[in-house]
Amino acid sequence: MASPGTLKVAVVGTGKMGADHVRRIQEVISGARVTAVVDVDAERAKAVAARVDGCTAHTDPAEAMASADVDAVLIASPGPAHEAALLAAFARDLPVLCEKPLTPDAASALRVLQAELSLGRRRVQVGFMRRYDTEYVKLKSLLDTGQLGRPLLLHNRHRNLASPPGWTSEMLINDSVVHEMDVTRWLLGQEITGITVLRPTPSANAPDAVQDPQFVLFETDGGAIVDTEIFVNCGFGYQVQAEVVCERGTARIGDGHAMVTTMAGRWGGTVAQDFVERFADAYDREVQAWVDATRRGEVGGPSVWDGYAVAAVCEAGVRSLREGGRVAVELVERPALYAVS
Amino acid sequence: MASPGTLKVAVVGTGKMGADHVRRIQEVISGARVTAVVDVDAERAKAVAARVDGCTAHTDPAEAMASADVDAVLIASPGPAHEAALLAAFARDLPVLCEKPLTPDAASALRVLQAELSLGRRRVQVGFMRRYDTEYVKLKSLLDTGQLGRPLLLHNRHRNLASPPGWTSEMLINDSVVHEMDVTRWLLGQEITGITVLRPTPSANAPDAVQDPQFVLFETDGGAIVDTEIFVNCGFGYQVQAEVVCERGTARIGDGHAMVTTMAGRWGGTVAQDFVERFADAYDREVQAWVDATRRGEVGGPSVWDGYAVAAVCEAGVRSLREGGRVAVELVERPALYAVS
Amino acid sequence: MASPGTLKVAVVGTGKMGADHVRRIQEVISGARVTAVVDVDAERAKAVAARVDGCTAHTDPAEAMASADVDAVLIASPGPAHEAALLAAFARDLPVLCEKPLTPDAASALRVLQAELSLGRRRVQVGFMRRYDTEYVKLKSLLDTGQLGRPLLLHNRHRNLASPPGWTSEMLINDSVVHEMDVTRWLLGQEITGITVLRPTPSANAPDAVQDPQFVLFETDGGAIVDTEIFVNCGFGYQVQAEVVCERGTARIGDGHAMVTTMAGRWGGTVAQDFVERFADAYDREVQAWVDATRRGEVGGPSVWDGYAVAAVCEAGVRSLREGGRVAVELVERPALYAVS
Amino acid sequence: MASPGTLKVAVVGTGKMGADHVRRIQEVISGARVTAVVDVDAERAKAVAARVDGCTAHTDPAEAMASADVDAVLIASPGPAHEAALLAAFARDLPVLCEKPLTPDAASALRVLQAELSLGRRRVQVGFMRRYDTEYVKLKSLLDTGQLGRPLLLHNRHRNLASPPGWTSEMLINDSVVHEMDVTRWLLGQEITGITVLRPTPSANAPDAVQDPQFVLFETDGGAIVDTEIFVNCGFGYQVQAEVVCERGTARIGDGHAMVTTMAGRWGGTVAQDFVERFADAYDREVQAWVDATRRGEVGGPSVWDGYAVAAVCEAGVRSLREGGRVAVELVERPALYAVS
Repeated sequence: MASPGTLKVAVVGTGKMGADHVRRIQEVISGARVTAVVDVDAERAKAVAARVDGCTAHTDPAEAMASADVDAVLIASPGPAHEAALLAAFARDLPVLCEKPLTPDAASALRVLQAELSLGRRRVQVGFMRRYDTEYVKLKSLLDTGQLGRPLLLHNRHRNLASPPGWTSEMLINDSVVHEMDVTRWLLGQEITGITVLRPTPSANAPDAVQDPQFVLFETDGGAIVDTEIFVNCGFGYQVQAEVVCERGTARIGDGHAMVTTMAGRWGGTVAQDFVERFADAYDREVQAWVDATRRGEVGGPSVWDGYAVAAVCEAGVRSLREGGRVAVELVERPALYAVS
Repeated sequence: MASPGTLKVAVVGTGKMGADHVRRIQEVISGARVTAVVDVDAERAKAVAARVDGCTAHTDPAEAMASADVDAVLIASPGPAHEAALLAAFARDLPVLCEKPLTPDAASALRVLQAELSLGRRRVQVGFMRRYDTEYVKLKSLLDTGQLGRPLLLHNRHRNLASPPGWTSEMLINDSVVHEMDVTRWLLGQEITGITVLRPTPSANAPDAVQDPQFVLFETDGGAIVDTEIFVNCGFGYQVQAEVVCERGTARIGDGHAMVTTMAGRWGGTVAQDFVERFADAYDREVQAWVDATRRGEVGGPSVWDGYAVAAVCEAGVRSLREGGRVAVELVERPALYAVS
Repeated sequence: MASPGTLKVAVVGTGKMGADHVRRIQEVISGARVTAVVDVDAERAKAVAARVDGCTAHTDPAEAMASADVDAVLIASPGPAHEAALLAAFARDLPVLCEKPLTPDAASALRVLQAELSLGRRRVQVGFMRRYDTEYVKLKSLLDTGQLGRPLLLHNRHRNLASPPGWTSEMLINDSVVHEMDVTRWLLGQEITGITVLRPTPSANAPDAVQDPQFVLFETDGGAIVDTEIFVNCGFGYQVQAEVVCERGTARIGDGHAMVTTMAGRWGGTVAQDFVERFADAYDREVQAWVDATRRGEVGGPSVWDGYAVAAVCEAGVRSLREGGRVAVELVERPALYAVS
Repeated sequence: MASPGTLKVAVVGTGKMGADHVRRIQEVISGARVTAVVDVDAERAKAVAARVDGCTAHTDPAEAMASADVDAVLIASPGPAHEAALLAAFARDLPVLCEKPLTPDAASALRVLQAELSLGRRRVQVGFMRRYDTEYVKLKSLLDTGQLGRPLLLHNRHRNLASPPGWTSEMLINDSVVHEMDVTRWLLGQEITGITVLRPTPSANAPDAVQDPQFVLFETDGGAIVDTEIFVNCGFGYQVQAEVVCERGTARIGDGHAMVTTMAGRWGGTVAQDFVERFADAYDREVQAWVDATRRGEVGGPSVWDGYAVAAVCEAGVRSLREGGRVAVELVERPALYAVS
């Protein structure tokens, strides 16, 4: 229960996600505080810093990381800015929590991977927060006991109330199904080797020219078939579900309920309206786990390898979406640093 | 409430299914009785007939149908015997309830269709009993109201405790997924235009050389994508579920429960162990509906066209299972006799 | 499977319930037909008889029972007319299905009991149809296995959309909770020894001067405590639930669901709107069971003793409702004819 | 988001509950740290203090509160020690989170209430943590909208796996049902005016001479009837449920589920095994809410009045348990300081 010094964190990116992480570190979790914030928009950085005691504002990540008052870095800037921020952190040997995506494409993710490899040890936890969701954790634990036997099929559902302005067909793969790519690999302990994106007639409620919903199939190197329904204009709320079918039984999450009301001829409950309502606790646990591990001098959770592998699946998925048919996923050999423990 | 005369039924086939229909007509439903039974095994026919007052035993369907004591025919013999029995009934202009499959292949189904066409009116109700299941009926009614909007996706689950001896990979398509073919077409009011059978690594509990589970995709002429998990050695029971995803909401059946017990650290209920437990009421309603319609001089329910279309999808499915990849489904033009009302 | 002759039934009372039983016997169940109907309203009796082939109309039950064309009697007239009809049936030694209540009070029920006793064998099945509901049957079967241990508590819920015109506070006991009295005794295999009716402030939606809801407590001779919420103007539908708490676990019924829809921010399903929707199958099974037993020469199901015991509990309950406090239930000694098998 | 100084907390009592609160403040929540611990067992206090940076150990609460390094007090010592600790905190005008019970009886609770009254403002939040449970909060919010109408009935279930050694019949009231007393008052916004404890035949699994289960009835000054099943040797787990019945509908909590598995003929999930598993999040939220309010200079949550009123209901409940029958609850007039906002 001893309390080694409070972790001093630089938060890179002060947009919606970054500002929420600042709030989380300052007001929700234990053992850390924000000592520096970084944003290309200097005014925004200053505004956020002004609300936190003893917090400095910067426009250059490397400058913030140079401060003696920074022990660790949380990267929440836009994806294209991640690679430079990660390399800057590596240069100072600082531990990092990097929001997903690790980087926007497989080639840049591979460069980050090679840079971390050259450090000889892991420095980065990638922000796939579903691995910290209570229900996903239960499902993973159950699968790991082996009592259901080997997983054969995995059915995923991923539904959003409505897509934000500017959302494209590709973003259903890169920004939504990306989560199912990670949890599929994690739950099954298998790599995805092929992806096929099927295109039903779009919903009348989807924006023009947006292919929504999509039905996405993965094959894995363990012989499992995985399907994901992604429907970002479902109109009723935010819903994430998973059902694993194993040799001796099935397990399902995301279909639970809290309060049930009965009124006016119907019984039932409410659906979460966005990912914040559904996954707020998972974000809290993710950041707490990173802070706790970092204070113990450890690095855990999703790795740069996971970030790279998922980037490769995304690229194949976008190609399948555009061209039709199955697209194979090609990965470099998995380095020993990222061996599954 | 007037009671026109009791319907006198000849039951063709006295195996497990035929004998069960005899029991159903005699002991469960109202308005009919069995006056003749037919089986190629004369002893079996006699044994069944002996348990029913005033019932004669035959080995030839046409002979039984020639009796003045027969108003209608229920065909429950093996699939290859259906065509001859149907044509015999057509010759006598008798109304028929024909167990699925209508016939074992699309070509013979088409011959039956043309024979019925030449009569100028429908005589046959095909035994797709799921259309009489209370839950499927609710789902169909809801879809027909249009309040959920247009259907985009349909997810089916079809699980059996264990496959009987001699069960083959093809039988998962022809004997199990055949039901999902019919309900897909019926629920959506669309024809299936293509089928793809995916093959995960089989369960260790599947018999040697049996591809179980399979993951089957349909495309429809309305642009919907439909997936069916068929898993006939799931080990825990019999489970049939369907979830329709529409433009404004979803609806799901097959996941209900009756009694919930809590004991020894767990809450939950039991899973049906076979299709009889799950669909006994649907069979009762199906036969009652046929008897009631027949006594009113009407023919309703699944038609010869449905039997033919499903036979064509089965053939394409078996080809996809064997050869891999998508196989298109080709149908003749739908005759006006079978127009959707 | 042998079919002894079809049972010829006289239906006494052709109001809503009686007419529904005529429909059930003629159109739903197997093995019986209605050959006579009786009503004090001769026109109503004639109108019902006219819709059934070979059915005669009467105003006097005894006259109908005198017909050679009557094998059995179904009594569905108002409660005060039951005693005379039952005694008439006993005079002809005819088997009876008597709708609940057996008679309107304990004294008359006891007279009927003594009349049946003097026949030396059971002739009457009392119409407590919940014993034929699939869920209650499952619950009873589970309790009888003993795997949950001894029952300690039973929680009942009984809710109606709205009370019909003229409904009084006493009718909540005599017409609604009467069902919980029977199922409590049956499920637990115990007699009710005391009853207390508690009166919360009535709902604003209850008719003037009607005490609705009520919260009713039973004690049993096995030491169990049983509570029943009766709320006949709940406003949302018809809902009957029961939860038994035993030494090693609990079991609950009436809370299941069929189709679940998700739409407009909510998931859930519909509530039955009346007892017909909830218990139609139970009525069908009840009458089929009676017909089947009668054709086998047997009498089963709820007995005259059950009808008498429940009448005694009703009387005590109405006294508790009016006067407050616990009222003891006094029964005569249980005759051997009604020993629990 | 400004961070006023971290709250420095003295924790009084370092037994199981106190030590858990130390862990919570140090490792889970944000904005506070433990600077002093107090225990009559000096060794235990020192052992806990040794694990926390800059934390002192004491045997006298007043001594710990005298430290300049203490801003607030969390009392988790045994109930009989609460009064002295509360008065010591009042003497220093320190804000307090006091674990339930406020004090062991109504007379001492009233003395504390009068002491706080003489301060002229609230200093104490009482530790009824269910008010911070996500599901109870949802239920309270729904009731407060008024859309279900006025509450008429409330059904509570409170089940524990097994009672600890030394548990007595009275402890079912004082240590278990005490929670239902508080949530009843809070959910309904009404005071309890009478209590009746019913005693079914005890479970064979209850320790000798322990009346378990009990069935407890409350009447409220708003005319509601509330029942609570308390069963502390239920054998299957820890289960807390509540169902409110209002004029236009019902709402139910505590019956939700997370993961559902299907295997070996059964579907279902696990039951929590103790209150820690069920209410860990509620404790975290409770303490975080207290720290946040205290840092803002506010006092909220359950008040000394709530602690006093519940103590009075407990006393009446124990009398009903011992003597049988209904016992009225008598309260002093509610001071304006504790007016419902």
